[in-house]
Amino acid sequence: MKITVVQKNFQKALSITERIISRNISLPILHNVLLKTDNNKLIISSTNLEIGINYLIGAKVEEKGEIAIPARILSDFISNIQDEKITLTIKNKVLYINSKNYKTQIIGFDTKEFPIIPKIKEEPIITLPTQILKNAFLSVINSASLLETRPELAGVFTKFTTNSVEFAATDSFRLTERIINQKPNNTGSAIIPRNTVLEVIRILSDIDTDINITLSENQILFSSTDFTIVSRLIDGNYPDYKKVIPEKIISKVLVLKDELEKGVRLASLFTSNISDIKIKVSDNKTEITAKNTDKGELHSSIESKLKNDPFIVSLNYNYLLDGIKAVGSDKVVLQYTGDGSPIVVKKGDEDKLFTYVIMPLRE
Amino acid sequence: MKITVVQKNFQKALSITERIISRNISLPILHNVLLKTDNNKLIISSTNLEIGINYLIGAKVEEKGEIAIPARILSDFISNIQDEKITLTIKNKVLYINSKNYKTQIIGFDTKEFPIIPKIKEEPIITLPTQILKNAFLSVINSASLLETRPELAGVFTKFTTNSVEFAATDSFRLTERIINQKPNNTGSAIIPRNTVLEVIRILSDIDTDINITLSENQILFSSTDFTIVSRLIDGNYPDYKKVIPEKIISKVLVLKDELEKGVRLASLFTSNISDIKIKVSDNKTEITAKNTDKGELHSSIESKLKNDPFIVSLNYNYLLDGIKAVGSDKVVLQYTGDGSPIVVKKGDEDKLFTYVIMPLRE
Repeated sequence: MKITVVQKNFQKALSITERIISRNISLPILHNVLLKTDNNKLIISSTNLEIGINYLIGAKVEEKGEIAIPARILSDFISNIQDEKITLTIKNKVLYINSKNYKTQIIGFDTKEFPIIPKIKEEPIITLPTQILKNAFLSVINSASLLETRPELAGVFTKFTTNSVEFAATDSFRLTERIINQKPNNTGSAIIPRNTVLEVIRILSDIDTDINITLSENQILFSSTDFTIVSRLIDGNYPDYKKVIPEKIISKVLVLKDELEKGVRLASLFTSNISDIKIKVSDNKTEITAKNTDKGELHSSIESKLKNDPFIVSLNYNYLLDGIKAVGSDKVVLQYTGDGSPIVVKKGDEDKLFTYVIMPLRE
Repeated sequence: MKITVVQKNFQKALSITERIISRNISLPILHNVLLKTDNNKLIISSTNLEIGINYLIGAKVEEKGEIAIPARILSDFISNIQDEKITLTIKNKVLYINSKNYKTQIIGFDTKEFPIIPKIKEEPIITLPTQILKNAFLSVINSASLLETRPELAGVFTKFTTNSVEFAATDSFRLTERIINQKPNNTGSAIIPRNTVLEVIRILSDIDTDINITLSENQILFSSTDFTIVSRLIDGNYPDYKKVIPEKIISKVLVLKDELEKGVRLASLFTSNISDIKIKVSDNKTEITAKNTDKGELHSSIESKLKNDPFIVSLNYNYLLDGIKAVGSDKVVLQYTGDGSPIVVKKGDEDKLFTYVIMPLRE
């Protein structure tokens, strides 16, 4: 290999591909990125066996070639130099990196051991603006289960219907559903692993082109002109979560998001082990209280607007905070569905696209 | 106790006093701050048995009193509310905190168990502007030993001479000396524990008045109108460190601080276990190289100005980086004192106030 690349592009590609590399994985070859020429491009690839990334940057290719290079040291070096142009040459499994101020050699490895990142031949099922996809994932990801006891809950359920894309996640204590009104080219569904969604969110922060989503039997692919991310899917049937979303609302209260969040955070200082706070909603105020026999107690009051009858509920403050944060609006509506029934968090009365359900505390 | 205080002042006092409270200390009373009225003031106190802080804020005192309150929960609560005025009342070992939006109770403890923070009766030995004291401590602190094998090295040696204050620290691998040209009221010396210096640096970041330093036999006191910090001193004789500072300079080289720092940082990626990098200084350039048989090697070159003969040295990159960072100027002078002799880092040729000595690597 003998090629010239622009430092900035190479740095970006490395920072994106390096991120998924697990530090404590047992297969040493996976600590490397694969560098490979392809016409007038350099492909930088990495994988942790669950997710694989290929990232393309422009390159002046004088001689073709490929090598596996320890990701950390290459990324640390390239991201800390300012020289504009970088020449990469391979001789005897060593990568020579030359630029104006630096001459560097990094010892690499044969690419034969590097796992092949699978290709998907299907056509994209939908193309979405980066920001919309990222926000949808951000809305639901906190509800995905951290446990592997029910593997299908450790991911984000994504359903492509005739008119929309529905994202849902639940750990059986709370549930988030986020609907995007964009028309897929086809129907289908997938359970995307929690880690994949987190990585895709991170990577999308650095990307501003539209994203194609392609579905195959057991894999999903996110791609744009510069990169492709392939991930395995979770095998299994996602529960019929729509049954959990209450249809009958008894009362609802409208509050300012920041005030509610602050009240809940302060109350959280005084909760006991089961993390419960009490919310008492009356005509024009919502009172939040928490009590811990060892620490003390707190009582706060915020202005609010009630529809129908006053109500009192006990909630886990963490679940409520996650819901408040996921809302993404200045105001929040809490819907009461009866004693021992779920509480629903919405953006507003007419909001059909975002739903956050908190299951009742079992005392 | 029944008093009213301003939230902002109380928050600042708590954030400063709470910081020294060790989370894993075995004496539970030390997790508390002591609140005590004093005329028209509230004194907030904390101690970790090595350092003690008293911080005073104005208060409208209707009824005197004192209580020990868990520092973390009080500080978390007070720093997260915006209500301007706060009323504090004590009833049956419970602190009632009332403000516009919140009614809170925190369970406290009897103040009898709270250790007395010692008072020093001596007159201040010197008064220094905060910024000067803070920068002097920052210059030397990294050289203080982290080990307790030679307890006297685990602190900053501070010597009050007839015309200046000298700060010095060494872990026997490198040494920093920083001299301040301010005249003390008296002579004396003290070894201030490393942790105390770190805490004083942190606290001074929030303070803008002058600082009085007072010395007693085994304690030191830093004080201003609002607060006093008392710390124990390290017992022992500080080594005669001035003997280590080379008098005879063979060659010296002037480089830009940022370029040298960047070169050393990049070289550090390629060092072996003993962390050594090689610096080769010739007429108008300084070359930095590092080699690791498993990873690869780096060679970089920066412009520089040599006085006298070219030289080559091997150095631990961490020690050199600490010296470069402590310099606090755009340019750095490296002084060569011979093969197997120390390297000295200075701000400039005529700099007598800052000296950083790196002992030679033993191969």
